[in-house]
Amino acid sequence: MFRKILFPTDFSEGSYRAARYFERVNGMAVGDVILLHVIDEGTLEDLLNGYSLLYSNEDLEIEAIKKALLRKTLEKLQAKAEDCKKTFRTKNVKTLVRFGLPWEEIVKVADEEDVSLILLPSHGKLGFSHEILGSTTVRVLRKTRRPVLVVKTHCECGGDGE
Amino acid sequence: MFRKILFPTDFSEGSYRAARYFERVNGMAVGDVILLHVIDEGTLEDLLNGYSLLYSNEDLEIEAIKKALLRKTLEKLQAKAEDCKKTFRTKNVKTLVRFGLPWEEIVKVADEEDVSLILLPSHGKLGFSHEILGSTTVRVLRKTRRPVLVVKTHCECGGDGE
Repeated sequence: MFRKILFPTDFSEGSYRAARYFERVNGMAVGDVILLHVIDEGTLEDLLNGYSLLYSNEDLEIEAIKKALLRKTLEKLQAKAEDCKKTFRTKNVKTLVRFGLPWEEIVKVADEEDVSLILLPSHGKLGFSHEILGSTTVRVLRKTRRPVLVVKTHCECGGDGE
Repeated sequence: MFRKILFPTDFSEGSYRAARYFERVNGMAVGDVILLHVIDEGTLEDLLNGYSLLYSNEDLEIEAIKKALLRKTLEKLQAKAEDCKKTFRTKNVKTLVRFGLPWEEIVKVADEEDVSLILLPSHGKLGFSHEILGSTTVRVLRKTRRPVLVVKTHCECGGDGE
């Protein structure tokens, strides 16, 4: 069985599709699941830059915004954790939020948590074409030493695929 | 369970490592396994070019060489098919040999056979670094619409990985 799975999600349709594929093909319970969301540093910076145009008290606000973002994301992840218990047939779903570059945090968490599989969609939120892999997925594949199951998100494969 | 798995092998240590990983993590039987070897067009051409320097009767020999190569490869695959029955806990292992570009034939066979998973090592015979993915693996990942499980071949991951 899969001892410990890292399931990074950007809350995109692609990532849920990867989970549904896994649910269909894997009939067994999974030991542990780490449900991870990475708040992209770049996105955060854009948000803060926009914010600082509107308000003057920048430094104080940055911390408040990060805190609020973290709280909101954890809430969203908690809701998803319930679905994950069914999908992966386990009670052990741990939620994690990180700030940083998504691919880098995924690789780091995979090592820290000593996972036996990383489950990734071919494209997350920013995927456009079904010809080319999403950049986060490519980078994780290159950098991690852990096994990675890539599920195509623009996929029409038969049977237990989509 | 995994209905039908395509397991392309170049007879490298990497590809067997991918199979052993799968054996450890997947406790269930697999429906069908397609054990594929692609005889690389480029390699074949080099071989034939070398051969034609030695002999004059080129055209006749080409067919004979291809035939001999096919026979030898099928024998090697048949021997591996026995291991695959244990690895994937199935009696249904089909062996296939193709001539062509490995990534292209892998993508084609996956569609023709309507597989639900492609099991690939990060590096086959020609892999050098653990930083960068093997070119066959990258191309399959880009082109196929099927789920792909990539197992790192220079991998030190804990637990049920290697």
